[in-house]
Amino acid sequence: MTQKVKIGIVGGTGYTGVELLRTLANHPFAEVTMITSRSEEGVAVADMYPNLRGIYNLKFSVPDANQLKTCDVVFFATPHGVALSMAEGLIENGVKVIDLAADFRIEDLAVWKTWYGIEPASDALMAEAVYGLPEYYRAQIKQAKLIANPGCYPTSILLGILPLLKAGLVNPMSIIADGKSGVSGAGKGANVAMLAAEMSESFKAYGVNGHRHQPEMKEKMTQLSGQEIGLTFVPHLVPMIRGMESSIYATLTTDKSQAELQALYETAYQDEPFVDVMPAGSLPETRMVKGSNMCRMAIYCPPGGNTVVVTSVIDNLVKGAAGQAIQNMNIMFDLPENAGLNQVALLP
Amino acid sequence: MTQKVKIGIVGGTGYTGVELLRTLANHPFAEVTMITSRSEEGVAVADMYPNLRGIYNLKFSVPDANQLKTCDVVFFATPHGVALSMAEGLIENGVKVIDLAADFRIEDLAVWKTWYGIEPASDALMAEAVYGLPEYYRAQIKQAKLIANPGCYPTSILLGILPLLKAGLVNPMSIIADGKSGVSGAGKGANVAMLAAEMSESFKAYGVNGHRHQPEMKEKMTQLSGQEIGLTFVPHLVPMIRGMESSIYATLTTDKSQAELQALYETAYQDEPFVDVMPAGSLPETRMVKGSNMCRMAIYCPPGGNTVVVTSVIDNLVKGAAGQAIQNMNIMFDLPENAGLNQVALLP
Amino acid sequence: MTQKVKIGIVGGTGYTGVELLRTLANHPFAEVTMITSRSEEGVAVADMYPNLRGIYNLKFSVPDANQLKTCDVVFFATPHGVALSMAEGLIENGVKVIDLAADFRIEDLAVWKTWYGIEPASDALMAEAVYGLPEYYRAQIKQAKLIANPGCYPTSILLGILPLLKAGLVNPMSIIADGKSGVSGAGKGANVAMLAAEMSESFKAYGVNGHRHQPEMKEKMTQLSGQEIGLTFVPHLVPMIRGMESSIYATLTTDKSQAELQALYETAYQDEPFVDVMPAGSLPETRMVKGSNMCRMAIYCPPGGNTVVVTSVIDNLVKGAAGQAIQNMNIMFDLPENAGLNQVALLP
Amino acid sequence: MTQKVKIGIVGGTGYTGVELLRTLANHPFAEVTMITSRSEEGVAVADMYPNLRGIYNLKFSVPDANQLKTCDVVFFATPHGVALSMAEGLIENGVKVIDLAADFRIEDLAVWKTWYGIEPASDALMAEAVYGLPEYYRAQIKQAKLIANPGCYPTSILLGILPLLKAGLVNPMSIIADGKSGVSGAGKGANVAMLAAEMSESFKAYGVNGHRHQPEMKEKMTQLSGQEIGLTFVPHLVPMIRGMESSIYATLTTDKSQAELQALYETAYQDEPFVDVMPAGSLPETRMVKGSNMCRMAIYCPPGGNTVVVTSVIDNLVKGAAGQAIQNMNIMFDLPENAGLNQVALLP
Repeated sequence: MTQKVKIGIVGGTGYTGVELLRTLANHPFAEVTMITSRSEEGVAVADMYPNLRGIYNLKFSVPDANQLKTCDVVFFATPHGVALSMAEGLIENGVKVIDLAADFRIEDLAVWKTWYGIEPASDALMAEAVYGLPEYYRAQIKQAKLIANPGCYPTSILLGILPLLKAGLVNPMSIIADGKSGVSGAGKGANVAMLAAEMSESFKAYGVNGHRHQPEMKEKMTQLSGQEIGLTFVPHLVPMIRGMESSIYATLTTDKSQAELQALYETAYQDEPFVDVMPAGSLPETRMVKGSNMCRMAIYCPPGGNTVVVTSVIDNLVKGAAGQAIQNMNIMFDLPENAGLNQVALLP
Repeated sequence: MTQKVKIGIVGGTGYTGVELLRTLANHPFAEVTMITSRSEEGVAVADMYPNLRGIYNLKFSVPDANQLKTCDVVFFATPHGVALSMAEGLIENGVKVIDLAADFRIEDLAVWKTWYGIEPASDALMAEAVYGLPEYYRAQIKQAKLIANPGCYPTSILLGILPLLKAGLVNPMSIIADGKSGVSGAGKGANVAMLAAEMSESFKAYGVNGHRHQPEMKEKMTQLSGQEIGLTFVPHLVPMIRGMESSIYATLTTDKSQAELQALYETAYQDEPFVDVMPAGSLPETRMVKGSNMCRMAIYCPPGGNTVVVTSVIDNLVKGAAGQAIQNMNIMFDLPENAGLNQVALLP
Repeated sequence: MTQKVKIGIVGGTGYTGVELLRTLANHPFAEVTMITSRSEEGVAVADMYPNLRGIYNLKFSVPDANQLKTCDVVFFATPHGVALSMAEGLIENGVKVIDLAADFRIEDLAVWKTWYGIEPASDALMAEAVYGLPEYYRAQIKQAKLIANPGCYPTSILLGILPLLKAGLVNPMSIIADGKSGVSGAGKGANVAMLAAEMSESFKAYGVNGHRHQPEMKEKMTQLSGQEIGLTFVPHLVPMIRGMESSIYATLTTDKSQAELQALYETAYQDEPFVDVMPAGSLPETRMVKGSNMCRMAIYCPPGGNTVVVTSVIDNLVKGAAGQAIQNMNIMFDLPENAGLNQVALLP
Repeated sequence: MTQKVKIGIVGGTGYTGVELLRTLANHPFAEVTMITSRSEEGVAVADMYPNLRGIYNLKFSVPDANQLKTCDVVFFATPHGVALSMAEGLIENGVKVIDLAADFRIEDLAVWKTWYGIEPASDALMAEAVYGLPEYYRAQIKQAKLIANPGCYPTSILLGILPLLKAGLVNPMSIIADGKSGVSGAGKGANVAMLAAEMSESFKAYGVNGHRHQPEMKEKMTQLSGQEIGLTFVPHLVPMIRGMESSIYATLTTDKSQAELQALYETAYQDEPFVDVMPAGSLPETRMVKGSNMCRMAIYCPPGGNTVVVTSVIDNLVKGAAGQAIQNMNIMFDLPENAGLNQVALLP
């Protein structure tokens, strides 16, 4: 048997980090050999995340460039700005890099800088970066050294709207995406607004000044459909831990029956292992993907108008983060795309 | 001191019924003298709803037309079809009627019949019915004998969109309302889909075949703005007990600054005791109205487009049902409009 | 009409503070004239707590001893240590003090110091302090200048066990109290362990090294029953915002029928406005007291043993904190004991 | 490679059924070949449980004794009374039976009949039945044809208390078990009390007249420790979907240090793949086992008494039902005990 892919994780103390560890625990062809955290040096991961007791003996170590070079691939589960400062050295040494943060997601670096407020990655590095949405960039991912793992909202919304956009069936200037995320999307930082006493039993829109995922989605929609895009995106917070639902509204520019729309979507995703178009007349629920790497979606036209609606659900920590990163790794290393990713959603 | 208004409640075993009782317990000028339920005859309301122990000595009685005539006003907290069969006899005897179900909400009876599937109310009865949204029908409510208390989604969405529609600032043919409701909106019936184990920790759109509140809203929007309306409405279920948020999207047909839009809304509702326009830059959360009769809302334009967004929150059982019914009663009986309705939202 | 009682609140930014404001908003005989917070000086309370928009015009001010002397009563909703440093000056000036923290709860100052780690209040101050559990200390509260408002667990557990202890029916050396609290009990501090993503959908015991409420309860049990007490107390965290349930286990030392035990409890609390003994065969739920000042309880003997069980529920922020403080104020100022406290529990 | 174990599931429409399917989906040595439901005949399991879309092609069939005989093992995920009527025929034909209901859990048939209200299994059948708690009955399970899979509360409480009882360190006559269960334990039946609007944001004790798991636990405690047992058991309902915590109280009859107690437990379970004794000073949380077959526990002595406390957590649907059933199957068929059971708990 061939050797397992050796994985390093930089910044593994957050929810994306523990989700990588959970998922990789049963990966048949890869193993985590190193996990870093400056603040938690020496702490056993199983002490921070007791669900990993008996599964990992790893301890957090201080990130060290030389040590990381012994890995085949390094995942960055860090705040933005870290991967862009460390990726070059790794790539030069033949280590593949998958960034779960936003450092390489937007090609227009001026736009990136506006939203993220720091100096963007170099042009040279950006030239290596591939947007890690396998359903639309699989060929490039296969060859890539550096992956920009998509944001959670962009994953659910791009997968939802792209068949319509690529088919040229809707007005590209008036796309509306009403997104809803569980609270794990806000991360593990101590934050009064995310206390259970604050946000349980409440629902709200947020991001009145805009959200960083809007320019990311808009750029990819334009790129993949070859059209200028007008996109309104309003994110909301749902009192649940995991799960993301996006209801996407577009105006049909040509008459299409429900059956034609259904066929369009079923055909678009018929070979995709992690996209499931629900039967006509049913709508997905976030619990149908909890803990799994699936994206489930439905397309339909509500009575009385020419608006088409796509509702799309993912687990924000899996297909929206760690699971998709592993899917990308599998593609990059020519492993079965679903290796380690066949977990069934936890229902109820 | 004048005598208290004598209230009868028909069908008080559901969530709307208990919410009427909770709110009316501290009403200074009204008292519940009769509550009916065919199935629970003889049961003390405090045995069914232990939060009312020590507060009400009432027992459920079988609905009896003669008994109900001793009331000044009768609330119907029943499934649709009950109020339309009993209202006429009460009104003829000088008893005012407030229907919390849908029997008199839609004036176009053909549309009503399509959605509700039974014979609608008579034209004579409909001629008496006033749509009980005080912010837009206060004068008519003052004179009314029969109130159609609005649906919960229509309350939050109409209050949210009407200032824009009445000002003629948006394209009336492409209104999109993305509604989210807590689970108490589904009522107290035994229903597998509403089990905590089913819908906790999950989020979904529902109503793929349309929702009865869409024609109700569309008719009122048309009536109040004098324009033909195109309305897409998608309801969603939130894993929380109480609360409703609507994110409403419309296309501006003329350039307006955030400040102008803010001023439009603040002016529209400046005298309203139960509508609160949040300061620019903030967004309402459902917990800000939990247990209270307030509707709080915000208006803003997300970056990069001509779409205007209104987010509006209510407690679906209060301003969306029992509280608004009591507000209507107060207006009809010339009581202070906020009598019994000054509860502060329960936060946290 | 007589003048309203003028209330000052020191440290009103936490959950106890906002709960005082919520409840006092409708108090007929008292009004909040001052609320202090060093960190939030100048901020409107309605900006911090939007449920209070339109209800209070107060701003947080820096606590100032001279200003506070203009109040009739000052509530301390502060961390421990604050009230004991400021109470003397206020009392000397005829201002009554109600401490919602722990500064005066334990008479044995050596024990207090062990658990709270700072210098305790002076003996002189302690001589003024009355433990504010009205059901057992009403006469003393009536005369008091300084109230130690009980902890939430002690309120629910003392009310639950005392009739048995006072009647001498159980072994006082083997009391077991298994307490469960909603997360608002942990306060509003930024705390990773209280994030919704951490503690929603989970249940745990905590306090492996003991809990400060244990010595408080033990002292009062001893005092009120005249017996040495052995008390095991294990607190647990429930994934809900409000509510506290305590299941209390004791060993009957003499045979008593269910009917006799029921009668004992009904008699003990027959005149109490805020204690409700549930009918035999039923058990209280925390939702039956959500947002209200009631304590509801049941007593029964599970099959097959001589263990008697009392289950007792309160809203930890109301009867367990702010509501009981107001009840104490009402008693001290000779107001109707239930003034401002007649809110019906929010159910569903 | 040897052939996979062929599994039949009788009554697979409830939560235990879907949990069996979820877990068995990735079992390397077993496969579900048949699943029955009289009411859902012909329905695809993936239509009832959309998390299984793309994973199972099975449809529910009417239970047929001849068909079931083609299986190697049949799981009964049925109400009590079904397995006892069908097991004999299967066993005679060499099919092993694992009953996830209560039909064979209590050896004292008179006691069983009192609690379950129907005729118990025959003595012959009971003679075959082994109580499927592997940690204490592994040798017998290895030889068994018929397994009585333990109840969820008994699993968490027996694992928690037995080391103390077997070591003779506590008074066996005064065991108190305060159990708390998530709502999935109540099953998938339409039941008003289990609606999200009813039991979310609330906590309560239930079972005022006793609970069927009490005699089950008492019998096994007696059997395994050779002592007469006095057991008080009070179950509670927690507003979460999955998870069970039991806090167990016992009186030490001999002085033992924390270190000695810790060592006792670590030794007792050192070879167990699915029992994890937490380090001294820490306490388990239900989320640490969500979706996994682990039982995690801690033992400690709260300050000031001779009461020892064990807190023990499981996922009620996994180690408390389906996972333990699969663990039993693995033992019976001489498969690796953890085959298919290495899922990491879903955290957050």
